[in-house]
Amino acid sequence: MTFTVNPDVVSVVEPPIAEARAWVDGRPPIPGKPLLDCCQAVPSYPPDEALRAHLAERARTFEAAQYAPITGTPALKSALAEHMSGFYGGEVAPANVQITAGCNQAYCLAIMALARRGDEVILPLPYYFNHQMWLDSLGVTGVHLPFRADRGGVPDPEEAAALITERTRALVLVSPNNPTGAVVPPAVIARFRDLCAARGIALVLDETYKDFLDPSEPRHTLFSDPEWGDTVVQLYSFSKVFSLTGYRVGSIIAGPQFIEQVAKLMDTMSICAARIGQDGALYALKHLWDWAGEKREMMAGRRQALLDVFNSGNLAFDLVSTGAYFAYVRHPFDGETAHAVARRLAQEHGVLALPGTVFGPGQDPYLRLAFANLEAERMGELGDRLRGAV
Amino acid sequence: MTFTVNPDVVSVVEPPIAEARAWVDGRPPIPGKPLLDCCQAVPSYPPDEALRAHLAERARTFEAAQYAPITGTPALKSALAEHMSGFYGGEVAPANVQITAGCNQAYCLAIMALARRGDEVILPLPYYFNHQMWLDSLGVTGVHLPFRADRGGVPDPEEAAALITERTRALVLVSPNNPTGAVVPPAVIARFRDLCAARGIALVLDETYKDFLDPSEPRHTLFSDPEWGDTVVQLYSFSKVFSLTGYRVGSIIAGPQFIEQVAKLMDTMSICAARIGQDGALYALKHLWDWAGEKREMMAGRRQALLDVFNSGNLAFDLVSTGAYFAYVRHPFDGETAHAVARRLAQEHGVLALPGTVFGPGQDPYLRLAFANLEAERMGELGDRLRGAV
Ligand SMILES: Cc1ncc(COP(=O)(O)O)c(C=O)c1O
Ligand SMILES: Cc1ncc(COP(=O)(O)O)c(C=O)c1O
Repeated sequence: MTFTVNPDVVSVVEPPIAEARAWVDGRPPIPGKPLLDCCQAVPSYPPDEALRAHLAERARTFEAAQYAPITGTPALKSALAEHMSGFYGGEVAPANVQITAGCNQAYCLAIMALARRGDEVILPLPYYFNHQMWLDSLGVTGVHLPFRADRGGVPDPEEAAALITERTRALVLVSPNNPTGAVVPPAVIARFRDLCAARGIALVLDETYKDFLDPSEPRHTLFSDPEWGDTVVQLYSFSKVFSLTGYRVGSIIAGPQFIEQVAKLMDTMSICAARIGQDGALYALKHLWDWAGEKREMMAGRRQALLDVFNSGNLAFDLVSTGAYFAYVRHPFDGETAHAVARRLAQEHGVLALPGTVFGPGQDPYLRLAFANLEAERMGELGDRLRGAV
Repeated sequence: MTFTVNPDVVSVVEPPIAEARAWVDGRPPIPGKPLLDCCQAVPSYPPDEALRAHLAERARTFEAAQYAPITGTPALKSALAEHMSGFYGGEVAPANVQITAGCNQAYCLAIMALARRGDEVILPLPYYFNHQMWLDSLGVTGVHLPFRADRGGVPDPEEAAALITERTRALVLVSPNNPTGAVVPPAVIARFRDLCAARGIALVLDETYKDFLDPSEPRHTLFSDPEWGDTVVQLYSFSKVFSLTGYRVGSIIAGPQFIEQVAKLMDTMSICAARIGQDGALYALKHLWDWAGEKREMMAGRRQALLDVFNSGNLAFDLVSTGAYFAYVRHPFDGETAHAVARRLAQEHGVLALPGTVFGPGQDPYLRLAFANLEAERMGELGDRLRGAV
């Protein structure tokens, strides 16, 4: 190239999932050890048949092939506002909604509307790697809140308070978390909200996995505060709950003035989210909560099977935290990089996991297992492989 | 809001199409003057029936609902590389391709990989508004190359040379142009390429409308230079040629090292372009060039009908340039803002056009007519309305 590349973009790491896949892609399978792929969080089942039939019907129309309004189709915005209002017990209106091309884009739009080069955003460790990659791309400094392995991965609002400076623009929470699976309890979320409100920064809350929460777990009450839009920016995804990853649909829920700023970025970056995905999301919101509930129970079964394996007592790997799609695990190879461990597990033992280090500094002792991809019946085998690796 | 918004984003203008639509939305239609909508460039016809059938078939699969590889499905990348190689007579390989969620995203990714806050990018006037909006969002300065209305809107490489500074990272050409319709002749494109190569900046070439070029017009020969990847970043869209706007598919074609940088941004921002749109684009590339050719001829017919109206001699509006989807027109209301003129045309005469000012400074004398949206039979009526407005 005779031209120069933006140094901020050069500084961004390689996409971690693609890198991990490259460890096994094109290599012959290990005899007797077909790959246990715990790498990317992807639903292991197709969207409901009725949803696929609906998508097929929509695909025949001219409308599905046309641009949608920038902030999303009115029907989807209403349905999502209604869902969030009901789910959390609060007031979310269509004017609070920006439909996005997935939750990654939701994060990118929200952060860009908040922060620019030289600003700071607080990310708890371990972070979702794309969150840090976007900060790096923008030249925004990611300030890292310490990992509280001792508290099941729940970050500490007081430690966060000490990190806020004049340049801080937002604090990001992911709950249930990727990579740890940890759920931030409602009372802790409320403390983070109070902190953000008091310090004049936005609380960006990524709830991609909210529908994999045990229904008995209490939900946060952010939206029941009539002033929630002054502080809260919620991000959501239709990818996992309805198995629609390939259609790219997510959302930002925030105050209407913030949505207006975000909409300018959305118009510029994408014009709109793919219309057929929006149509699918609308159908799912209206008809598929029972289906989603069954899947959630299936995930809970997989999680229980995983817990059984780790609680069997003869595993040198420790379960640090788990929930929704993920388990965050401490490996027994002290002194070895997580990268070397993950690669060996993949290439010698047929277990594809991500090294903790893709989720931030200090994460060499850990691996992330996206266990949700594995049928419950295969967890025993996962345990055998991990035992065999030691 | 108790938090602050990124001032760069605050400085971005409102989405112009949405603003123009608001002039007429919700108002009763003008008696005897049903709206002639020349506002947004959108195909007035559905995708081919066979394409819609293919999309419907794909929508029934699990695969369409799954994430695609970051840079796009291998099949689409190969087919697009082959198409570009054949169309331009040159060498484009799959490793040169990043599939994007439309050409707007292609531009955003490419620019972000090139420039950061404080850098400069050269945009010829009048510019495609989203191009300037993205520069403003990033805090990158858009440096404007003068509008050459005297040369049918073809920008001047020598004038561009004088604008390049140490902070310049790219020069953007849109050909066929939005908003002017002007086609930059191959020899002029080659001079821009030489200039960019000599000065170490990227030539970003948006060819969203390439398939609406008259087949008798010569094509640029950029890709026949084996070193093209050192300078050229081509942007393309499946939106208009195959009437797939709602599916959000486009591409970046560039050197493989640049694609690697772009892929990191794509992973972060979107993970991938919607898979079903990619499947549709692949089908179209393989089967629908005859169909696209018919549509191109239909567009040429609409353009001829428009030329007939403007050449009739009794119109106070002057045609400055036209091509592909657009006509750039000088209105007769000297001293009035383009905004006021466009609004009056919309609200009193039922002609929805965009004011020149959304395409940059100094554009008050002009309006953009996206004439491609109108059947040839209605051009006479457009002429009548314009005459009636004077
Ligand atoms: C925490 C978190 N946010 C966002 C996303 C992106 O989801 P989407 O497919 O909606 O872009 C993921 C996907 O893995 C995720 O884990
Ligand atoms: C010059 C130009 N580039 C890009 C685009 C965006 O197209 P897409 O739908 O592929 O994002 C348009 C659409 O109007 C355009 O006119």
